[in-house]
Amino acid sequence: MRLRDVLEHVGVRDDAVYVAYYGADAHASGDPNKVPISRGVPLQKALEKESLIAWAMNGEDIPHLNGYPLRLVCGGWPASVSGKWLARIVIRNQVHDGPKMTGTSYRVPCKPVAPGSEVPDDQMCIIESMPVKSLITYPKSGIEHALGEKLALRGHAWAGDLSVDDVHVSIDFGATWHKAKLEKPVNRLAWQHWKAEVGFPEPGYYEIWARATDSEGRSQPMVLPGWNPKGYLNNACHRIAVQVA
Amino acid sequence: MRLRDVLEHVGVRDDAVYVAYYGADAHASGDPNKVPISRGVPLQKALEKESLIAWAMNGEDIPHLNGYPLRLVCGGWPASVSGKWLARIVIRNQVHDGPKMTGTSYRVPCKPVAPGSEVPDDQMCIIESMPVKSLITYPKSGIEHALGEKLALRGHAWAGDLSVDDVHVSIDFGATWHKAKLEKPVNRLAWQHWKAEVGFPEPGYYEIWARATDSEGRSQPMVLPGWNPKGYLNNACHRIAVQVA
Repeated sequence: MRLRDVLEHVGVRDDAVYVAYYGADAHASGDPNKVPISRGVPLQKALEKESLIAWAMNGEDIPHLNGYPLRLVCGGWPASVSGKWLARIVIRNQVHDGPKMTGTSYRVPCKPVAPGSEVPDDQMCIIESMPVKSLITYPKSGIEHALGEKLALRGHAWAGDLSVDDVHVSIDFGATWHKAKLEKPVNRLAWQHWKAEVGFPEPGYYEIWARATDSEGRSQPMVLPGWNPKGYLNNACHRIAVQVA
Repeated sequence: MRLRDVLEHVGVRDDAVYVAYYGADAHASGDPNKVPISRGVPLQKALEKESLIAWAMNGEDIPHLNGYPLRLVCGGWPASVSGKWLARIVIRNQVHDGPKMTGTSYRVPCKPVAPGSEVPDDQMCIIESMPVKSLITYPKSGIEHALGEKLALRGHAWAGDLSVDDVHVSIDFGATWHKAKLEKPVNRLAWQHWKAEVGFPEPGYYEIWARATDSEGRSQPMVLPGWNPKGYLNNACHRIAVQVA
């Protein structure tokens, strides 16, 4: 069901700005008074029609590891806002300050910093919509492939609150790129399927790279983008190895 | 003067395929019977009008470190074919086999290989025209720059026997690229000057990347391209750091 329907059913005060969860999972220390994680999203994200309280996945109960019996789903944002084993929802009149909301948890420097910089807590900002990213899901890395035959590739791409406009693939470390066939998302915030066929000019070792571009024209980098203390937001291109014989 | 004029003056037999040099430099062992390096190029490269026997640089004698009194200049190829302290030129009826022509010297696997592969000598091929490459020559890496002011960049780009069609710069690790202003080469095989202006959206640490594309549409990769035993042909983008305050 929509999180919004529940929020509207109980009523949201005018000063509400954040919606957060508490789950049934125990703290790693075993101390029942400690909360392992309690995160949340701004009210407007919680009210989007894609923000869900889910009780089923693929027509069956949600598996225990995925949050049975209930979990939040707030697509396009860090997975840690989609709380598992949902026990309680709180509406806050300030930015939620539960465990893993503060310090360097799921935060990056508000301004880009040099690698290794010390960043004071008050200059760390909460990660919201995730950057554009893609995966090559077929074939697996390390396969052998026959020269003269096309290799069919497929994968997924997504772009946080945005959609993906293009996926390109390269077999030459990014010297040239070829456009993949990209499907529309089945609904907003869903990943998008892509596929492509590539041929190889001669036998040898190749890497296949995939690079997605979001609806605002920003592409995945080919290397780790801006440094941050915890290493978040690394949306560098996925690459696989293929031996062509 | 043109190497071609000298070759035609002395005469080139019909079976000639390679032109090579010997220099006046001594072998590092001190043994006067050992040749430190003797490399060459196919006859057709030697006969190009840009292949020179040079005796001056910028209107003055060639500095000793650069090959005084004479050196070969065969642009667009590995610098090691532009022999210094030129003492003797030989015309060969086979591919030249002097020191640093064979084995893994200035050679890469004929077919792309997986990183770390053992490659037999007979599967190593001589490097000829070099791949597209660019440098950022101004500013130097590590400068501080004022927010709100444009930063003027400049540099050079070249592409072996080809020319450079485009240079792009990025301030966001390659997520987006901006076209630089690129000059034509002053003559074939000369490097091409480029310049660009970039602005910064907020204070912080940035890297500036430059990426050239050759006249056959191949761009510099953002990482080391195909592995080879000696690490040749790394034409990955040059990057500098800028702190914007």
